[in-house]
This record gives sequence, structure tokens and C-alpha cells, in this order.
Amino acid sequence: MIISAADAAGKLGGTVNGNPGETLSGISDLKGAKEGDVSFILDAKHAGEALKSAAKVIISDSLDSLPGKTVIKVKNARLAYIGAIKLFFPDRQREGFISDRASVSKKASLGKNVVIGDFAVVKDGVVLGDGVLIGDGAVVAENCRVGSGSSVFARVTLYPGTVIGERCIIHSGAVIGADGFGFVENEGSIVKVPQTGNVLIKNDVEIGANTTIDRAAFGSTIIGNSCKLDNLVQIGHNVELGDGVIIAAQTGISGSVKIGNGCLIGGQVGFADHITVGRSVKIGSQSGVSKDTPDGAVISGTPARPLMEQRRTEAYAGKLGELFKRVKAIEADAGKPEDKK
Amino acid sequence: MIISAADAAGKLGGTVNGNPGETLSGISDLKGAKEGDVSFILDAKHAGEALKSAAKVIISDSLDSLPGKTVIKVKNARLAYIGAIKLFFPDRQREGFISDRASVSKKASLGKNVVIGDFAVVKDGVVLGDGVLIGDGAVVAENCRVGSGSSVFARVTLYPGTVIGERCIIHSGAVIGADGFGFVENEGSIVKVPQTGNVLIKNDVEIGANTTIDRAAFGSTIIGNSCKLDNLVQIGHNVELGDGVIIAAQTGISGSVKIGNGCLIGGQVGFADHITVGRSVKIGSQSGVSKDTPDGAVISGTPARPLMEQRRTEAYAGKLGELFKRVKAIEADAGKPEDKK
Amino acid sequence: MIISAADAAGKLGGTVNGNPGETLSGISDLKGAKEGDVSFILDAKHAGEALKSAAKVIISDSLDSLPGKTVIKVKNARLAYIGAIKLFFPDRQREGFISDRASVSKKASLGKNVVIGDFAVVKDGVVLGDGVLIGDGAVVAENCRVGSGSSVFARVTLYPGTVIGERCIIHSGAVIGADGFGFVENEGSIVKVPQTGNVLIKNDVEIGANTTIDRAAFGSTIIGNSCKLDNLVQIGHNVELGDGVIIAAQTGISGSVKIGNGCLIGGQVGFADHITVGRSVKIGSQSGVSKDTPDGAVISGTPARPLMEQRRTEAYAGKLGELFKRVKAIEADAGKPEDKK
Repeated sequence: MIISAADAAGKLGGTVNGNPGETLSGISDLKGAKEGDVSFILDAKHAGEALKSAAKVIISDSLDSLPGKTVIKVKNARLAYIGAIKLFFPDRQREGFISDRASVSKKASLGKNVVIGDFAVVKDGVVLGDGVLIGDGAVVAENCRVGSGSSVFARVTLYPGTVIGERCIIHSGAVIGADGFGFVENEGSIVKVPQTGNVLIKNDVEIGANTTIDRAAFGSTIIGNSCKLDNLVQIGHNVELGDGVIIAAQTGISGSVKIGNGCLIGGQVGFADHITVGRSVKIGSQSGVSKDTPDGAVISGTPARPLMEQRRTEAYAGKLGELFKRVKAIEADAGKPEDKK
Repeated sequence: MIISAADAAGKLGGTVNGNPGETLSGISDLKGAKEGDVSFILDAKHAGEALKSAAKVIISDSLDSLPGKTVIKVKNARLAYIGAIKLFFPDRQREGFISDRASVSKKASLGKNVVIGDFAVVKDGVVLGDGVLIGDGAVVAENCRVGSGSSVFARVTLYPGTVIGERCIIHSGAVIGADGFGFVENEGSIVKVPQTGNVLIKNDVEIGANTTIDRAAFGSTIIGNSCKLDNLVQIGHNVELGDGVIIAAQTGISGSVKIGNGCLIGGQVGFADHITVGRSVKIGSQSGVSKDTPDGAVISGTPARPLMEQRRTEAYAGKLGELFKRVKAIEADAGKPEDKK
Repeated sequence: MIISAADAAGKLGGTVNGNPGETLSGISDLKGAKEGDVSFILDAKHAGEALKSAAKVIISDSLDSLPGKTVIKVKNARLAYIGAIKLFFPDRQREGFISDRASVSKKASLGKNVVIGDFAVVKDGVVLGDGVLIGDGAVVAENCRVGSGSSVFARVTLYPGTVIGERCIIHSGAVIGADGFGFVENEGSIVKVPQTGNVLIKNDVEIGANTTIDRAAFGSTIIGNSCKLDNLVQIGHNVELGDGVIIAAQTGISGSVKIGNGCLIGGQVGFADHITVGRSVKIGSQSGVSKDTPDGAVISGTPARPLMEQRRTEAYAGKLGELFKRVKAIEADAGKPEDKK
């Protein structure tokens, strides 16, 4: 697609400062931009990079103009650059297509414009909403439900009874609804606790590649609306995530943990089981969260502590050598026998 | 299924205190229970929750009676509630079924009542015992053996020569037998060490979703009887797990590590390669195990230390600020120039 | 295959000290060796184990002879044992074979001797070089390119536009090219940033089982020549790995991180986003790398510090109890009121 700066500004709700007739054929970050790309700066401090960029047209909410560039001034550059991406990479309207190489049960119910790829499996009792995509090689087991507009990409597994809301994206290799990890010891032998529940994913959720979400022992493991889980995340049985929880890659959430709305969780974080984390908690990467955490806390480290406390502890730890020396000097002044170590 | 409290008690080897005619149609934890569900308490301290639960019938080994409830008194509530789950969710007897959409080699040997799902691949020389399930889209490569009663769920990969014992459960997405991670540097280039061994999984093992177990360089990577591995666990080449080792999610075990019988390993633990861990060792989540560890040790932290030592170290670390102040005060009293920092 | 020690030595560029007529039918490490196996020692300190081994013929670069054994003396034992493995496990020459159960687009371009397994999917615009393997159930989406001699094993997913070089090995379950993890908050709602780029993997790269590599937001996520990634590794969008970077299992690299040539990265390491790591940096397992790191650094811990500093800090931490006692003793000597805690 080719579009003028003026037309782009119109579609993005912005105004042009510079050459409104500049033609745009793509979008890129500043570094990778080719001539003809529109680019963007999210912070005025990147003005220098913008000047060096090959992009002639820059989207900004902080700068009105840039020497030698045409600026599309907008209210929110982050939203505007997403809008600009969609100009050049428009969402494709799905036309229904069911591969004759798929295995689709006659006892499944399919909405309009459903796409089912090669070697996908859709079993008895499955209900797929309008416009659902089931990718190549994906397995949708008995009695799963997938809401309208959701995409279950290639080689995802949905175990029986999994429920997925509307407009969700489940990336390739994710496994939703495998058994929770529950065992009972009995006189030296290890007895499996049957996992009778399911997984319930609400609307507008994105689940990363090869992420695993276990079914509940009883009831449902719940992923709230608009949660975004990165790749290789582990969600244990009976976990309940509120709405808008964002979880970076390789984090693991143990069984029966409850996490409030709007939490922001870094990568490689671990959680002890059965704890409750409040709303809008921010958790640093690689933290180990060992206990209940109040609303709004900002925590880090293992065991996780308030961020400022954790930073102070780290700073002190870095000065321990000095402290040992100081104590030794005091002891020497006091005529104490030298520390033997 | 509908069953009376008396009949349920009979099947669970317990006795009824209350209304033996109470009808039961399901099982749930206390919180999720609906009327008609039997529930359970594993500890008398949950009596309060039991009273509030909608469940009219409670399985317990600690309490004889609860006001307003019917109690099924048993010897071991953990085993009894597993028994009760199986009343309502009985193991289905498998009837043999081989999808005509599967690709099954004529040079494979199949036991009785084998189930092979859609788009599953079973290659030359594979031997499947009686009642084995190969799920949809699973790939069982050349010369693999899967013992009687084992379930290889959807989209599992077994690389050539993998051996799996009886009554095992391999969850979706697991990859068993990929190459171990072995390379040799040679004048700046990196040469792959061919991995000639296989993976040997004994009986009654459960492997979580998207877990990976690498083949040995020589010989076998061994997973002992009754080991239970959670999701996203990594087992390196030539690792040997004894019997009954339990490993929580996202733990990684480096090459040639040996772990004794009955070890209990938390989530996100890492192990240095070539170390030996004794029997019945307990390892806290996120630990980094860097050296040989004796039988019965309880360790935690990075590097992993005895738990009590680790807790003390953490407690001391939390009081470092105070210690710095005290040392400063001593120095001031001694007329020392103030610490410049 | 049966080969004499003399012939093996000839093929490995070594000389025989002992019985050149000794027949060899396999290769093993010292412990697992059976009579008839050739084995090897990589360090003279293993001479004792070699003496006890059932192997009659030992490859060594450090020892000329061993009592009762025949030694094949070579210049580089690591390379020679790889060579010996290849004598007994020769690389099989691929003959072209396209399963009639695969789904291969007529708009894909296939080189000579391509192998495509059962239920594999090769979409429009895909280009496969000579001798490429696409394993059973693998999905190669639109416009991917896979270079000559590369193996894309069973159940790998390549998202659209992924480019893989020559002689690469992609293990089962890997997902290459899923969306990067990018979201923008807008008045309480979470807006997905479309990920328009791709993944570019250069030559001689090995990617472990169930590893995930995300596509770039713009441009390419780049994996340099001869990089070796273990299982369950996560590579975020716009990461750039130089040549010869080796990454152990379960490490996660956040978005836009740049890593120089020849870095050696342990398992379960995490990286803050947008940082730059120089060349030939060595990073200990479970480290958290939080900032730019110069060429040649050897770092460890969270936050990662120079290894010696990290070790000292750990040693000091282990002696904190002693330090608290010493400070208390000084205070007592000075007649200070006892610390209340």
C-alpha cells in the first residue's frame, strides 16, 4: 500500500508538520527504516536517532517538528504507531475454510467463517464461534469451546473441556488443560490425584508459544480477561488470574495461587503455592514470591521483598568486603587477637 | 452417577456419622461444592470452611462429626478422596481403536486394545503394549517401545529408540529423546558430538506437558519407576533419576547428574552437571544445586545450602542495614573519621 | 560395522600402541563400554577408570599406552572420538521422500532429495533447499525458507516468513516466529502491538526441543552462524545473537538484547531487555544480567557481577553470622546496651 503523509495523519487522527505529500509504503523502527517507511519516536530523547533515520516521516506525540523530516503529530504515539502498522499490515478478514485434511467431528458445532487447518483435530462436542481459527495440526479435544474471533494456532493442544473466550490468541505449541500436578504419598507409593476440572480462559487473552496451563483438580483454572502470557509460562492447577495480568516468559505459577487484576510479572518468576497476590502488584524478573502480597506492592528478589528494600540489600551485599575490613580494624584497635579466618 | 453416603462409605472403607441416605452426585473441594457433592477435609483446621460449604457430606480422617453435616469417617482422607473421585470419574476401559487417519507402519507391533489417534505416526520397529494410547498427532519414531497401559498424549514426540515402561502418562507436547547438548570446540569452530544413546523411562512415570528429556550421548538417560515430572522440565543427556523422584515445573537437570530415590525437587531448580544427589533429598524452589549432596539433605538457595543455614543467611541479609549502622556508631565512638560513603 | 584398531587409527589420524588387530564393533564411554567397544579418555586423570573399563581399545591424546589396553594415540581426543562415533553411526545420506500423507503446496519450491514426513505442512511460497528434512507433523508456514541440509524435526512450527540457513538442526517442538511480546496500555485497556518482522537463523545453528524464538516487531530477530541453543530456551523479539553463541537450557533473552560472538551462557539465565553483551562473555547459570556487559567478561549471580566478586560476596554472606557476633562482642566490650534484637 502507498499512502500520503496527509492521508496517514488523517487516519491516525494527527496533523502533518512538513510535506503532506510525502509517500509512505511501510513502517519501521528508526534504525531499520528504509526510505518510504514512516517511523516513530515514543520519547523526545530519541530525536537524534530520528534525524539519522532514513525515514522521512516520523510519528511523534512529543515533538512538533524535526529538521528535514515531516512529523505526524499525534496525541498518543504508541497508539498511533500501532494504527500505522495496521495501515500497512491490515487484519485480514477470515473467509471460512475447512481443510479436507482436517479431522472434524460431525458432533462439533462450527460458527460462520471458521478456518480449520491441515491435520487439525476437532472432536465431539466442540463448539467453535464465528471466525475461529484452528491452525494446522492443532488438537481440540472433546467438549472444548472457543469463542468468536479467537485464533488457536498450529500445533496447540486443548485438552477436553477447555473453554476459551472471544478474540483470544493461543500461540503454537501451547498446551491447555493437561493434568495438574497432584500426588499423594501412601506408604511409599505415589498415588495420582485425578484432575477433574478444566481451564477457563476469558476474552482477549494472549497465550505464548509452548506455554502450559493445567486443568483444575476441581472447578476451573481461570485466566482473566485481557491477560497476556508470554512463551514457556507455566500455570498450575486452580490458579486464578484476574483481568489484565501480564506475565513475561518462563514464569511459573504454582497451584491455587490467586493473582489480582492488573499485575505485571517479569520473566522467570516463581510463586509458592496457595498464596494470594493483590491487584496491580509489580514483580521483578527472577523473583521468588513466597507469601501473600498486598495491592500495589512493587517487589523483587528471592524471597521477594519491596523493591527498595531489595535494592538496599543488594547494595549492602556489595559492600560486605568493606564491612568485614572495618570490623577487623576496630578489633585491631581494641587490641583483639586477629580474626583467624 | 448417584450414590448414597452409605454406599460411598462402604466403597471407601469408612463409616457414616449422620444421614446414610444422603444422595451424592459428584465431588468437589469445599469452596466449589454444590449441593449433592461430597467434599473432604484433609485437616481438622478446615472445619470452619466445611461448615460453610454447600456440601452436605464430608470425608474426614480427623473429625468424627460436623454439626449439620454427614461425615464419612475414613482412615486416610487423602486416599479416600482419590477413591471418591474415581467413583464419579471412573477410569474408562480402553477399547482398541486405530484411526484410519493415523500413519502406522506395518513393521510396528501392536498389543491388544491399542488406541491410536488421528494423524499419529507410529514408525517401523515400534512395539506398543496392551492398552497403549498414542494420542492425536503424536510421533512415535523408529524402534520405540511403550509398555502396557501407558498413555502418550496428543502431540508428544518420541525420538527413535525411546523406551517407556508400563502405566506411564506422557502429557501433550513432551519431547523425549532429542539430542543431548554436546559440542566440542575445535580451532574456533563448534563440532557437534553425535548422541548415540536413548531415553529409558521405567514404570508408573508421569511426564508433564512440554517437558523435554534428552537422549544419552552413550547408553541411556534413565527416569526411574514412579518418577513424576511436572511441565516444562528439562532433563539433560545421561541424567539418571532413581525411583519416586518428584520434580516441579521448569526445573532443569544438567547432563550426567544422578539423583537418588525419593528426592523431592521444587520448581525452577537448576543443577550443575555431573553431580550426584543422594536419596530423599528435598530441594527448595529456584535453588541452584552446585555440588554433590548427601542422603536426606534439605537444601535451598543459590548456591544451595542446608535449609536452616540458608534461612539464617537470608535473615542476616535482611538486617545488614542495621549492622552497617552499628559499625558506624562504634567507629564514631572511637573517634574514627566518618565513613565517606 | 566391524573394524580393526589399525583401520580405526588410520581413519582417525592416529597410531596404535598395542594390538592393531583388535576388532571394534562399537563405541562407548568408559563406564558403559562392552567388550568390542572402543572407548576414550579426554584427560589422563581418567586412566584408572580406563583400566577398569571393559573396552580393550582406548582413544587418547594424553597417554601413549595403558597396561593391558590398546591405545589409539591421536592429536585431539575430542575430535577423534567424534570421528569414531561417526565410524559406527555414519551420517545417512538422505534420499528424497515426500510422504503422500503430507500437505505440500504446489506453490512451494523444493530442492533435490528433500524429505517431508507424514502430516507435515509446507505452505505457499516456501523454499526448501537440497536435502532438507521436514519431520512428521512439522508446520512450515507461508514464505519460509530452509537452507540446504537443514533438518526441521517432527512437530516444529515455523511461522510465516521464517528464514533458516544451511545445515541447521531444529529439534522437535521448537516454535520459531511466534509474535513478540509487545503491548501498549491505553486508558486501562491493553493493546497488542502487531509484530511485523520475522526470524532469521543463519547457518550451522542447532535449536533445542521446545525452544521458542519470537519474530521481530520490525525487521528480524537474528540467530548468528553456529549458535547452539539448548531446550526450552526463550528468545524475545528483535534479539540479535552473534556467531557461535552457546546457550544452555531454559535461559530467556528479553526483547532487543544484543549478544556478541562466542558468548557462553549457562542455563536458566535471564536478561533485562535492550541490553548489549559484548563478545566472548561467559555467564554463569541462573544469573540475571541487568546491564550492558563488556567483551570477555565472566559474570555470575543476580544481578550478574564479575565472577570473582560474586564468589566473594557469596563467601561473605556465608560468614554473616560470625560478623554479627563479632560486632556484638565489640559493643559489649564498649559497654553498649545489648542489641535488642
